[in-house]
Amino acid sequence: MTSHKELQRIEAFSDGVFAIASTLLILEIAVPHVDDVMHPGALWLALKAEWPSLVAYLLGFESILVAWAGHQRGLTLLTKSSKAFLYANGFLLLSITFMPFPTAVLARYIDTPQANIAVMLYSAAWFVTNLAFNLWWLTMFRPVRLLSSSLSKAAARKVTRHTISGTVLYACTIVLSYWFPIAGFLIIFASQMLWIVVSIGDDEAQ
Amino acid sequence: MTSHKELQRIEAFSDGVFAIASTLLILEIAVPHVDDVMHPGALWLALKAEWPSLVAYLLGFESILVAWAGHQRGLTLLTKSSKAFLYANGFLLLSITFMPFPTAVLARYIDTPQANIAVMLYSAAWFVTNLAFNLWWLTMFRPVRLLSSSLSKAAARKVTRHTISGTVLYACTIVLSYWFPIAGFLIIFASQMLWIVVSIGDDEAQ
Amino acid sequence: MTSHKELQRIEAFSDGVFAIASTLLILEIAVPHVDDVMHPGALWLALKAEWPSLVAYLLGFESILVAWAGHQRGLTLLTKSSKAFLYANGFLLLSITFMPFPTAVLARYIDTPQANIAVMLYSAAWFVTNLAFNLWWLTMFRPVRLLSSSLSKAAARKVTRHTISGTVLYACTIVLSYWFPIAGFLIIFASQMLWIVVSIGDDEAQ
Amino acid sequence: MTSHKELQRIEAFSDGVFAIASTLLILEIAVPHVDDVMHPGALWLALKAEWPSLVAYLLGFESILVAWAGHQRGLTLLTKSSKAFLYANGFLLLSITFMPFPTAVLARYIDTPQANIAVMLYSAAWFVTNLAFNLWWLTMFRPVRLLSSSLSKAAARKVTRHTISGTVLYACTIVLSYWFPIAGFLIIFASQMLWIVVSIGDDEAQ
Repeated sequence: MTSHKELQRIEAFSDGVFAIASTLLILEIAVPHVDDVMHPGALWLALKAEWPSLVAYLLGFESILVAWAGHQRGLTLLTKSSKAFLYANGFLLLSITFMPFPTAVLARYIDTPQANIAVMLYSAAWFVTNLAFNLWWLTMFRPVRLLSSSLSKAAARKVTRHTISGTVLYACTIVLSYWFPIAGFLIIFASQMLWIVVSIGDDEAQ
Repeated sequence: MTSHKELQRIEAFSDGVFAIASTLLILEIAVPHVDDVMHPGALWLALKAEWPSLVAYLLGFESILVAWAGHQRGLTLLTKSSKAFLYANGFLLLSITFMPFPTAVLARYIDTPQANIAVMLYSAAWFVTNLAFNLWWLTMFRPVRLLSSSLSKAAARKVTRHTISGTVLYACTIVLSYWFPIAGFLIIFASQMLWIVVSIGDDEAQ
Repeated sequence: MTSHKELQRIEAFSDGVFAIASTLLILEIAVPHVDDVMHPGALWLALKAEWPSLVAYLLGFESILVAWAGHQRGLTLLTKSSKAFLYANGFLLLSITFMPFPTAVLARYIDTPQANIAVMLYSAAWFVTNLAFNLWWLTMFRPVRLLSSSLSKAAARKVTRHTISGTVLYACTIVLSYWFPIAGFLIIFASQMLWIVVSIGDDEAQ
Repeated sequence: MTSHKELQRIEAFSDGVFAIASTLLILEIAVPHVDDVMHPGALWLALKAEWPSLVAYLLGFESILVAWAGHQRGLTLLTKSSKAFLYANGFLLLSITFMPFPTAVLARYIDTPQANIAVMLYSAAWFVTNLAFNLWWLTMFRPVRLLSSSLSKAAARKVTRHTISGTVLYACTIVLSYWFPIAGFLIIFASQMLWIVVSIGDDEAQ
C-alpha cells in the first residue's frame, strides 16, 4: 500500500512539473513594442516579427506533450515504485524542465549564422532527455522489477527498441547539425510528429 | 482500468495547466514606479495609470475559468481515453496557455489607434481555442466512442451546437473588430458573461 | 457521482492555484547587485538592503497558507458542487492570485511617505478576498444546499460570524491606514497570526 | 474521513509547491546574447560563459528533489493530520520555495571574493529548511500522534537522528564557509549525493 501511495505521489509531482514546464513557455513571448502607434498596421508588423518566438512556443509545447504522453504510458505499467526509479524519474523531469532554454536559444538564433550551434544544443538536450528515458525505463526492471506481470516480453522489447533508436537518432542530429542545422532540426520535428501519428494509429488498432 | 488511470492523469495534467495559466497572469502587473515619493498621493496616481493591466488580469482570469468549467464538464462525461483525445486535449491546453499573450497585447493597445489589430488578435486566439474545443469534442466520438452511454443524443447535440456557434461568433468578431474594435471586444466579453449566467441557471433548473 | 467528481476537480484546480500563487512570490526577490566585489562584506550589505522583499515574501506566503487552510477546511464540509459554487470559488482564487501584487507594492513603499496608500491597497485586497470568502460560503447554502448534514447549525453560524468579522476588520483597516499605515498593517498581521494560533488550539481541544 | 481528506489535500498542495519550485529554476537562465553573430562559434562561447547558472540549475533541482523524496516518505507514515502539522508543513514548504534565491546568489558570487557570504547564505537556507523538517517531524507526535502504529520506535528514532544530524551539519558549514567557502559548499553537495545513494541502497536491502 505504501508503495502504491508513493507511485501516486510520483505521478502527481510529475504531472505538476510537466504542466508548469509547458505553461512557462508563454513567458518567453514579450508584448511587442510599437514605435509609432499612429501608423496603421504598425502592431501587425511588430507581431509578425515575433514569429520565431511563436514557433518556439508551439514546438516547445508539442514536445513536452509528447514526452508527457510517453511518461504517462510508462507509469500505467507500474505496480510499485523504488527509490532508484524515483531518482531516475527526477532526472527525467530535470531534462524536461530544462527544455525551454534550448528551445528559446533555437528561436533566437535559427535565422543567424549561429544556427548550427543552436540546433546542436537543441539536439543535445533531446539526446540527454532520451538518455534519461532509457535510465527511467531500466529502473523499472532493476534493481527490483516494478512492472506488472501482464506486460509481455515482446511489448517490453518494443519500448526498449524505441528509446534506444531515439537516442541514436538524436546523437546523429547533433553531428549532422554542425553542417546542416535546418536538416537536423527538421528530422527532430518530423520524428516527433511521426510519433504522435503512430500513437494514434496504435490506439485505433487495439 | 489502464484507460481509467489515463483519464485521471489527463485530468491532473489539465488542472495543472489551467491553474498555472490563470496564476501566471499576475506576473504581467509590475509594481508601479513613483518619481517623487514625497508628493502626497503619487502612488495612487501611479496605481490608477495601471488600470488596463488590471482589467486584462480580471478578463484573463475570468476567461480561463470559463474554459476550465467547460473542460471539467466535458471530462465528467468520459469513461475512458484514447490517444487521439489525449492530443486533442493537448492542443486545447496549448490554446489556453497562449491566452495570456493576446490578453496582454489587448491591455497595452486597447486605447491606441492599434486597437483594431489588438482585438483581432484577441478574437483570433479565442477562435482557435474554440476550434480546439470542437476537435476535442469530436475525439470523444471518433475514432472510438469515449462517452458514457448515459449521455442522451439531445444533450450531445446541444453541446455540438454550443461549440459550433462559439466558433462562428469569434469568426465574426475577427472581421467586425477591423472596423469596430470596442464592439468586437464587448461582444466577446458579453458572450462569456452570458455563459456563466446560463451555466448557473442550468444548475438550478436541475 | 458526477457532482462528487466535479468537487474533486475544484479541489485539484484550487490546490494548483494556491501552490503556484505561494511559489511565484520568490520571483519578486532579485539577486542583489554588488558594485565592488573586492570589498569584504559587500554582498552582506546588499543582502541586508533587501529586507523589505524578504519580509514581503514571508508575509505573502503566510497569508496564502492561512487562506488555503480556510479553503481546505471549508471544502471538507461539502458533499457536492454547483455551478454557482464553482464560480464563487473562481472569484476567491482570483482574489488570492492577485495578492502578490499588493504585497509587492507594500514591500516597496512601506518605508516611504506613500506608506498609507500602500497599506490601504493591501487592506483593500484583503477586504475583497474576505468578500469572496463570504460569497463562497453563501453558495454552500444557496441556491442548493451543498453542505453535509452533519454540520451543526451552531458550527455554521460560527463560520459566518468569522467571515463577517473579517470583512468588518479589513474595512476598518482601510480607513485607519490613511492616517496610521503601520498600525493598519500590524492589525492585519496580528489577526492572521491569531488565526493560526486559534486553529491549532481548536484542533487540540477536539 | 475528514482528516484523511485533509491529508490528501496537504499532499496535493505540497506536490504542487515542490513541482513549481523545481520548475521555476529554469527562469533564472537567460538566453545568451551574442555581439557578433557572424563570428563562427560566438554562441558557443556565450553558452560556455553561462556555466554557473547551469550548475545552479542542476544543484537547485537535485536538492528540491531530495527534499521532496524526504517529504513524500514522511507523509506515507501518517494516518491523519492536525492543524499544527498543517502549519509546520507550510513552514517547510516556505523554506523550500525560498531555495531558488540563495542558489541564484551562490551561482553569481561563487567565483568572486564574496563567495564566503554566498555559501554562508546557502548553508543558512539549508539550516532553516532542516529546522523546518525537525519541526515537521515533531508535529507528527505532538500535540496528537498522527503516525500509523506500524512504525517501530527504532525506525522513528532513526529519522530523528537523521534530521538532527542534518541540522548540526548545516550549522557547521555556516561557520566553516566564512573561511573556506568551497569546502563548505562541497560538504553540503556531498551529503546530499550520499543521501540519494543511501536511499537507493536502503530500498534494495528491503
